[in-house]
Amino acid sequence: MAHRAILTPIARRVALPALRKSSTTANASINHFRRVVPTAAPKSNRASAAKSSGFTADSYPEIIRDPRFAKLTKKHVTYFKQLLGKESAIIDGVTTDDKASEIEPYNLDWMRKYKGQCTLVLKPGSTEEVSKILKYCNENLLAVVPQGGNTGLVGGSVPVFDEIVISTARMNQIRFFDELSGVLVADSGVILEAADQYLAERGYIFPLDLGAKGSCHIGGNVSTNAGGLRLLRYGSLHGTVLGIEAVLPDGTILEDLSRLRKNNTGYDLKQLFIGAEGTVGIITAVSIHCPQRSKAINVAFLGVESYEKLQLAFREAKTQLGEILSAFELMDSRSQDIFHKVKGNKRPLEGEYPFYCLIETSGSNSEHDSEKLEKFLEDVMTKELVTDGVVAQDETQLRSLWAQREGITETIGHWGGVYKYDVSIPIKDMYQLVDDVRTRLDEAGLIGETDEFPVVDVVGYGHMGDSNLHLNIAVRRYEKVVENVLEPYVYEWISHKDGSISAEHGLGLAKKKYIGYSRGDTTITMMKQIKNLYDPKGIMNPYKYI
Amino acid sequence: MAHRAILTPIARRVALPALRKSSTTANASINHFRRVVPTAAPKSNRASAAKSSGFTADSYPEIIRDPRFAKLTKKHVTYFKQLLGKESAIIDGVTTDDKASEIEPYNLDWMRKYKGQCTLVLKPGSTEEVSKILKYCNENLLAVVPQGGNTGLVGGSVPVFDEIVISTARMNQIRFFDELSGVLVADSGVILEAADQYLAERGYIFPLDLGAKGSCHIGGNVSTNAGGLRLLRYGSLHGTVLGIEAVLPDGTILEDLSRLRKNNTGYDLKQLFIGAEGTVGIITAVSIHCPQRSKAINVAFLGVESYEKLQLAFREAKTQLGEILSAFELMDSRSQDIFHKVKGNKRPLEGEYPFYCLIETSGSNSEHDSEKLEKFLEDVMTKELVTDGVVAQDETQLRSLWAQREGITETIGHWGGVYKYDVSIPIKDMYQLVDDVRTRLDEAGLIGETDEFPVVDVVGYGHMGDSNLHLNIAVRRYEKVVENVLEPYVYEWISHKDGSISAEHGLGLAKKKYIGYSRGDTTITMMKQIKNLYDPKGIMNPYKYI
Repeated sequence: MAHRAILTPIARRVALPALRKSSTTANASINHFRRVVPTAAPKSNRASAAKSSGFTADSYPEIIRDPRFAKLTKKHVTYFKQLLGKESAIIDGVTTDDKASEIEPYNLDWMRKYKGQCTLVLKPGSTEEVSKILKYCNENLLAVVPQGGNTGLVGGSVPVFDEIVISTARMNQIRFFDELSGVLVADSGVILEAADQYLAERGYIFPLDLGAKGSCHIGGNVSTNAGGLRLLRYGSLHGTVLGIEAVLPDGTILEDLSRLRKNNTGYDLKQLFIGAEGTVGIITAVSIHCPQRSKAINVAFLGVESYEKLQLAFREAKTQLGEILSAFELMDSRSQDIFHKVKGNKRPLEGEYPFYCLIETSGSNSEHDSEKLEKFLEDVMTKELVTDGVVAQDETQLRSLWAQREGITETIGHWGGVYKYDVSIPIKDMYQLVDDVRTRLDEAGLIGETDEFPVVDVVGYGHMGDSNLHLNIAVRRYEKVVENVLEPYVYEWISHKDGSISAEHGLGLAKKKYIGYSRGDTTITMMKQIKNLYDPKGIMNPYKYI
Repeated sequence: MAHRAILTPIARRVALPALRKSSTTANASINHFRRVVPTAAPKSNRASAAKSSGFTADSYPEIIRDPRFAKLTKKHVTYFKQLLGKESAIIDGVTTDDKASEIEPYNLDWMRKYKGQCTLVLKPGSTEEVSKILKYCNENLLAVVPQGGNTGLVGGSVPVFDEIVISTARMNQIRFFDELSGVLVADSGVILEAADQYLAERGYIFPLDLGAKGSCHIGGNVSTNAGGLRLLRYGSLHGTVLGIEAVLPDGTILEDLSRLRKNNTGYDLKQLFIGAEGTVGIITAVSIHCPQRSKAINVAFLGVESYEKLQLAFREAKTQLGEILSAFELMDSRSQDIFHKVKGNKRPLEGEYPFYCLIETSGSNSEHDSEKLEKFLEDVMTKELVTDGVVAQDETQLRSLWAQREGITETIGHWGGVYKYDVSIPIKDMYQLVDDVRTRLDEAGLIGETDEFPVVDVVGYGHMGDSNLHLNIAVRRYEKVVENVLEPYVYEWISHKDGSISAEHGLGLAKKKYIGYSRGDTTITMMKQIKNLYDPKGIMNPYKYI
């Protein structure tokens, strides 16, 4: 049971009841949420309830297949079969007709929003094989899409037309680990959770955590510069990745797998590949600095009366929890309403609040951390910044509280679909976007409780500690009229506040055309120069990014 | 007085005496060491005892002035005077003869090893002025050297021939600070210590600290990807810098001053400027994420019997001190011998040891931190990993202990000069380089106590927590015979161990030709492509870097 006694503010002397027993029952299903995505190669039975909308090429009629690209023939397939040898390394839908269902998981994204028409999947087993594949594709003008765990949310990891999928699934070995420095070198196809498990056994932690950890590949994480739950504490991959091995479109292998934290010898080229979404090459291995794993983890779940108070509570958490603060997550009342409506379980707190936050601490000394957290909670309740709260007393409760935050992603899709905006906005203005979007949809008469309204609700949650908001619009169906009310309005709003239209999900296909709202013309021009420099034939993940 | 009682290991029950009173006297001079470099614009009265070796062009006869570059004329100077207006914004040695001494500090590096022949110094006051200057220089083929505090150690910030120095000294305003997120936006010419002081008043800390903080500019820090003392805790600038404003050689202003920790909208171009040493543009402003300033700082100074034991102590420090560990610095016995020989003060510890280490903790709760540190010290002494040690009891003692580490840089130059190698090597092999170099110089008959020997001693110290060793060879005079014994031997040794020939100092002029020991041909080719892309006329900081 989560324990509340310690949260009683001295000034208020309100006796806080213990968590209801029934919430333990809820944990069974809550635990299931933690890994929304299956822990194997892509499967077609996705968890999301969003409906498949047919081929991407149909929903984006303005995108035309680049006629420069060759169409796959038997000759090409013969070359790849000869190169890769093993039957399991290739799914050939070019010369055979019975491979459609086997290929589908590689064509369809996790949200079932984007669907390509690829007929050939290659699964190289080594960097050299990737090199030979790309060299051949480049020479023969065959477009490709690099794919890791295919858990992206912007349509970046699936083809648009008949691009060849190059999967990193078979490159999944840990190459090196140094227990003294915490430096890990691993193939790009290692699943994030597997890497973290390997590190856990050695007292270390992967400096990145996200909902899809059971499926996503670390190469994909680096390629998309994934942010996730630990960024607040361990910083971005631009700081923790020490080196990469990558293959350029012409087959050149860039071997830059430094195991050193400091290496000031020339331009830091690896940085261009971090977040490049496979548009300039394929990352085949990663070297990363991993921090010490914390022995003690505490999680508190708090109810807050206003966004202003939440900001003040965040400032106090930074000051008082300092080095042990590892997460400060925001959830608005609507996100929690939906979570409980869909899941049917009880809430961690007795009352209902406009805002909730989840605070996690990670440290090396359990007693010290608990003392700091208790003091902090007493302080913010005495100051009336926080009205109610619970602290997890064991691992089950900890997971249960995290599920209140992590489970939103799944439950929000309950009615049919979700318009997802993963944005970054200076904290003080951040939540205002949710209210403004709700008002706008309401004024357009699109939001309501019955089937005639396309929109169910507008919710906001996210990594408040990183200024990262997930604005989600739950819909019963995707309708152009909704989209027109949302866009470009949302992007203009964000641009006006100097925010970013993509905080951590990337550009992919979904946000390619909106980059101008977050980047200036000069920057975009320079980006295009980089793309042309490294991929002059444009075969790498075409139609996307910039 | 530093306090030792807590260090007495229970198992050994050795009574450790308190620090001698005389060491307090030493603090007066020790405190002086903390800021080796003066806190103003470059001056010619450098602290280093190393002798000036004349013009760089004479010591590097193989470098020829690029004949494509124009020579400065009265016409050029007239343009710049018209542009910059203020008399204080330009030092004109082109049309006047009496400016040599005023210009010298801009021509001479901090170590007095590199001396250029520049006759014109420009000090723009705004990004627009920098833009107009570069546009004009690019059109007229006038080579330039961007200069911040001119505290670099590889000759990167001074001209080789008659390149124009563009100083950022007049661009020194804090533009923005957000107390909630800790994001600071400041002009590139802000002195690091000034920025940190500004942040200290607001409860934050600049995520970088180094000996030259009283002079160096934050733009220079970012341009050289400075590492320093806090990297172990706060990571590299590639992770903490959120955005930059920079001017390209053709005058284009790249405005990418994001104030967000997460912004996945395209290639992270700013990364190319971090550590580019002014070869692709001039950074005019920086946006950086600053962490909470720790309320409690503890420093321990320990004596260790072997490098093996030191490694084990480091592993324990990571495990037991975890999130509060902010520095783990190595000093060998010779570096401390020299420090005390030159300074004449007493040592912090009674006995002498082959190795010393300085451990710093920074945290939000003084009691908790002290408890962790005491437990750790008791543990490592019980395990006999550490033989003796002291813990600072107040700010003066803390500075005094830090001076044992930071003062090495100054005292090592006492006999005339120093060959400095700032390298990164996997920890287990790191110190072996010092022994091997000493043996090699000894076998060559170059090292000894009397004047006939050019080499005084070989010492090793550095940021052990970051795998970063400073190998220093103290000499009575610079002699080619010494250099020939050292190079390329040192670089080959490092390359053999997959190390980096420049951990944090950069390439500059000193290491330009050795980059191949740390980077592969593919990487170097790609770097040259980047240079050609952004600076096709090659006017930016020529003759250096790659």
